[in-house]
Amino acid sequence: MVVVMAPGAADEHIQAVVDRVESAGGQAFVSRGVSRTIIGLVGDVTLFGGFDLGAMPGVSDVVRVSTPYKLVSREHHPSMSTVEVGGVPIGPGTFTLVAGPCAVETPEQTLAAAQMAKAAGATLLRGGAYKPRTSPYAFQGLGERGLKILADVRAETGLPVVTEVVDAHDVELVASYADMLQIGTRNAANFGLLQAVGAIGKPVLLKRGMSATIEEWLMAAEYIAQRGNLDIVLCERGIRTFETATRNTLDISAVPVVNALSHLPVMIDPSHSGGRRDLVLPLSRAAIAVGADGILVDVHPHPETALCDGPQALVDADLRALAAVVRQLPPLLGRAPALAAPVAAV
Amino acid sequence: MVVVMAPGAADEHIQAVVDRVESAGGQAFVSRGVSRTIIGLVGDVTLFGGFDLGAMPGVSDVVRVSTPYKLVSREHHPSMSTVEVGGVPIGPGTFTLVAGPCAVETPEQTLAAAQMAKAAGATLLRGGAYKPRTSPYAFQGLGERGLKILADVRAETGLPVVTEVVDAHDVELVASYADMLQIGTRNAANFGLLQAVGAIGKPVLLKRGMSATIEEWLMAAEYIAQRGNLDIVLCERGIRTFETATRNTLDISAVPVVNALSHLPVMIDPSHSGGRRDLVLPLSRAAIAVGADGILVDVHPHPETALCDGPQALVDADLRALAAVVRQLPPLLGRAPALAAPVAAV
Amino acid sequence: MVVVMAPGAADEHIQAVVDRVESAGGQAFVSRGVSRTIIGLVGDVTLFGGFDLGAMPGVSDVVRVSTPYKLVSREHHPSMSTVEVGGVPIGPGTFTLVAGPCAVETPEQTLAAAQMAKAAGATLLRGGAYKPRTSPYAFQGLGERGLKILADVRAETGLPVVTEVVDAHDVELVASYADMLQIGTRNAANFGLLQAVGAIGKPVLLKRGMSATIEEWLMAAEYIAQRGNLDIVLCERGIRTFETATRNTLDISAVPVVNALSHLPVMIDPSHSGGRRDLVLPLSRAAIAVGADGILVDVHPHPETALCDGPQALVDADLRALAAVVRQLPPLLGRAPALAAPVAAV
Amino acid sequence: MVVVMAPGAADEHIQAVVDRVESAGGQAFVSRGVSRTIIGLVGDVTLFGGFDLGAMPGVSDVVRVSTPYKLVSREHHPSMSTVEVGGVPIGPGTFTLVAGPCAVETPEQTLAAAQMAKAAGATLLRGGAYKPRTSPYAFQGLGERGLKILADVRAETGLPVVTEVVDAHDVELVASYADMLQIGTRNAANFGLLQAVGAIGKPVLLKRGMSATIEEWLMAAEYIAQRGNLDIVLCERGIRTFETATRNTLDISAVPVVNALSHLPVMIDPSHSGGRRDLVLPLSRAAIAVGADGILVDVHPHPETALCDGPQALVDADLRALAAVVRQLPPLLGRAPALAAPVAAV
Repeated sequence: MVVVMAPGAADEHIQAVVDRVESAGGQAFVSRGVSRTIIGLVGDVTLFGGFDLGAMPGVSDVVRVSTPYKLVSREHHPSMSTVEVGGVPIGPGTFTLVAGPCAVETPEQTLAAAQMAKAAGATLLRGGAYKPRTSPYAFQGLGERGLKILADVRAETGLPVVTEVVDAHDVELVASYADMLQIGTRNAANFGLLQAVGAIGKPVLLKRGMSATIEEWLMAAEYIAQRGNLDIVLCERGIRTFETATRNTLDISAVPVVNALSHLPVMIDPSHSGGRRDLVLPLSRAAIAVGADGILVDVHPHPETALCDGPQALVDADLRALAAVVRQLPPLLGRAPALAAPVAAV
Repeated sequence: MVVVMAPGAADEHIQAVVDRVESAGGQAFVSRGVSRTIIGLVGDVTLFGGFDLGAMPGVSDVVRVSTPYKLVSREHHPSMSTVEVGGVPIGPGTFTLVAGPCAVETPEQTLAAAQMAKAAGATLLRGGAYKPRTSPYAFQGLGERGLKILADVRAETGLPVVTEVVDAHDVELVASYADMLQIGTRNAANFGLLQAVGAIGKPVLLKRGMSATIEEWLMAAEYIAQRGNLDIVLCERGIRTFETATRNTLDISAVPVVNALSHLPVMIDPSHSGGRRDLVLPLSRAAIAVGADGILVDVHPHPETALCDGPQALVDADLRALAAVVRQLPPLLGRAPALAAPVAAV
Repeated sequence: MVVVMAPGAADEHIQAVVDRVESAGGQAFVSRGVSRTIIGLVGDVTLFGGFDLGAMPGVSDVVRVSTPYKLVSREHHPSMSTVEVGGVPIGPGTFTLVAGPCAVETPEQTLAAAQMAKAAGATLLRGGAYKPRTSPYAFQGLGERGLKILADVRAETGLPVVTEVVDAHDVELVASYADMLQIGTRNAANFGLLQAVGAIGKPVLLKRGMSATIEEWLMAAEYIAQRGNLDIVLCERGIRTFETATRNTLDISAVPVVNALSHLPVMIDPSHSGGRRDLVLPLSRAAIAVGADGILVDVHPHPETALCDGPQALVDADLRALAAVVRQLPPLLGRAPALAAPVAAV
Repeated sequence: MVVVMAPGAADEHIQAVVDRVESAGGQAFVSRGVSRTIIGLVGDVTLFGGFDLGAMPGVSDVVRVSTPYKLVSREHHPSMSTVEVGGVPIGPGTFTLVAGPCAVETPEQTLAAAQMAKAAGATLLRGGAYKPRTSPYAFQGLGERGLKILADVRAETGLPVVTEVVDAHDVELVASYADMLQIGTRNAANFGLLQAVGAIGKPVLLKRGMSATIEEWLMAAEYIAQRGNLDIVLCERGIRTFETATRNTLDISAVPVVNALSHLPVMIDPSHSGGRRDLVLPLSRAAIAVGADGILVDVHPHPETALCDGPQALVDADLRALAAVVRQLPPLLGRAPALAAPVAAV
């Protein structure tokens, strides 16, 4: 059972709900979000039902949770959501290309990749300053120095920035530079981090955990939503299976399955799912056709010297082919390619 | 090492190769196919290399196998193959819709499903007379009675028939009715059955084993090819993973991966991979976009009473939507919808 | 719904049941086993319930199937079964070592392996004459020549023979030589083969399919049982997962899970699950401790030249260590090592 | 390439190494651990090899990393390690039972569970104050209040405490109460958390990620080790597969595989892998037999009202059976049951 407080509910009203629940032997967990406060109740639901929580001051709604996720569900929110990132929409009716280098390495490499991305039709720039790497001896990203490079490149190109945050401790810092915070596959069950990005109030790109079921993925989104942040875009990036021909197995069915369950936009990352440059184009076409709201693609001016995931980064002819697909295929399926936001036209 | 005999090589020439290999302490396995005989050699390859097998009478070629599959590989056969089934092409340049009931139940149901399939643009009729079912208490198919129904419906509609064979013992019987033999996912490593359909010389639709790697799938095709039958169409139908929202996980990346490795056509079965009617349309669009050569779809006039897999069978509005997609999307991606063959226009 | 006919029920009684079911619009599938005939009913169960099938001549029992498998379930058969193979018991109270070469290659190699196996405490000899191999170019076994070698080695050592059958067509032939028929992992859903070994009336060793759930595995056993053969021993041999450090992932929990569901004995194959010689001993200890009724182990006099699975075959010190474990550990856990049957003492 | 600085190396010596590497166009990542500082080099290794890093002041060793994990590998550390937790050894020669409630709920419940654990032979108490839960609406643990309860119960029972930390931000706080820090399966790739527990210098229990390969698991351990903390115990807790009869699939082979690769102790969690009370005992026997250094078991005085994972918690007869197994089986396999440390006898 979840008690949703009205916007601006007073602390004493919140405390009154907690006290009443605890007096009945239950437990109350308060989540203070940017726009609303939510109180989750644990214990014997029949006890709480006896007194009228909905009538208490400051309470806007009391909902019984039937699906395990509620705020991100279509049950009470049937129309699909659009999330705006620096003025760029992600959602129904448009198709958004997010592109950039897997990792920010130097100002020159990042600017070159951003220009390649923009030329290919990208309206958002991706790039990692904090890289979660399996090996502690692999390149871990430039940290804040990388964030500054991204901000400079945004100023130069007008592309809003999507970048990963890997530690709850860094959320404020990363949010001060980024337009959208990315949660990577390895952190899809890092609940403290999910709550932290929920509280900061910036759009979030939530990748699916590599062994997360679709239900668990939506529950991870619910962790963010519960803190008052519903600006969440889901991103399918391949799951772990027995097949070794590809880095991961792209679960393309996840797009229509999620669309039936949740109002959140869904994107596909064809670069990380396949892990191979030659698969990016066909998987991007499939992503458009299956109904994804956008794709997330690695580009790099010199993939052969990339510090991270070079074998999947697009360049030259491959990138031009992608540009053609992204411009031509979505309109045939009823979607406009996302245009750069006015602010991006600087 | 494989010794490929010339077409029409005499038995004594074949025996001479076997004798020479065995005299060197090796083993020789003779596979007699419809169009050629192949002798696989096992043992210390350096020994056989010493004497010149290639110069022996009746020998057309001696090849060292570098990839584990050779006849289905693009290595020595770079151009993509087209397989003709009752005059209907499956391969590059066309997009083929195979549709029909999961199981043949009655003449009326089969005819109705075939007419629905044809109206939706199908040029081949699928339908199972032998059903491999997990439970011995489930409907196992009508057997030869079902084959006769399929033949009658072919005569009525002009649609060539694709139907499954589940036992090597039945191959001749099924082949006497069918235009294309289907090997199901549960028999993808039933090597005796693969060899039997290889020897019978009818086109084969080879579904991927639900836990087969792409390499193992191509090896299964090689079993068929080794018996002299290269009229093989591969069909991705979902693999087994931890995800339970769908019946299987459609591995859509398998299409471009196989295209890079093999010259055989590849289709997708969106009905069995998702197991849900609402996923058939988006997955069919994705199949077209990713570059599949066709799709295999369940239709049923009354899915609610179907004896097998009703929840995934298309009907009415769903089927009309599929028809529109199959007619409109392939041409946008450079493929013609497969037209019914002249013979089918009877 | 399943109608179990009395032993020796007349054909006319069987036909009468079929007729009555069909007259009600249902379907009846007759399975004639060695010891009993079973009729599976498909259709609207309420219709059949109306007339009293149980009172018809020759009918011994009419059961509604609640679990998807019935004959192998503990529901109606709570005490655990013991299966005798050439006089050697497999079941509760004993621990049986089955050992031998993966593949029969020569009389000398097979005899040497059998003597190694016997010295290590094995009371049954395993060895493959028909080998299902992923590659059509790999050694496929000696066929009937291999069966004869196994029979000769049985005569020499007194060890009853367990050997695989891969094709329904070969069941009679293999059964004429073998004491127990093995169904391999690749044929765990080859229902025609399961039915054929069910009908032949020899003990069966049923390996789990590499991607079969435990429920599906028990359903495969039900296919055998339905033909009147309940002398089935299940064998866990590893399932397919994302982990690559081992050939398969031994699902050791399957033993207690199956013990809770089925009365059939369960063994473990530590050789094929790990695929590594160094894992056989620890996994064998685990198999004993978890409660398995026996293990199936590869041994080979010269693993380095084995035509099949050499890297996992035990030899010398490893085999002596296994022998010590198999003799000492089961008694500590309340099981006797299986003794060779009297006939084996020749 | 990794530069290991001598204990107490001066900051200027560390900086000198960094400068020299960067002057050659490389990148240097400094990890300051409790007992040593390590500098990881990224870039063209041949460049760094040219100048003699090993001869620079303060440098103790320069190693080329061949396996992806080095500090936890047996390559340079062949003898197996023992980790002491509050005086209780975990490692070769002993078998350690860690038991307690999944979640700390109340002082009474925790004390009762600890006494049950101790009576069953446990020498370490487990219990969660911070619970990573898939649902944001599920009980998330008592936080610091739970830690205080654990400390009180330790004072009462003498059992050192193992408890989970889920956020890098909480590491210091949790470490101020706990004797051993647990990293849960969902945080196995939360590299910031791994580094934080590496730096704090307390023993760590590192659970395997539910979809982590064994290599990735050892890399996670390397993240901890790299910060100077080698007091790491690995814990296999089941991996995610297609099988649904158990909560996870216990990969029991992981124990001998890890033993061959790493000197770190390995435990098994039979409670979380199976998720069923009836599997805990057989899996515990298997864990002992396969060579694990200990097990981690859920106990609860009233599983039916547990706020977390009640269905797998042991109680009463099951717990007495476990106690008997843990006392009797390890000595038969050459291991002493771990005795409570003297400090624990208070």
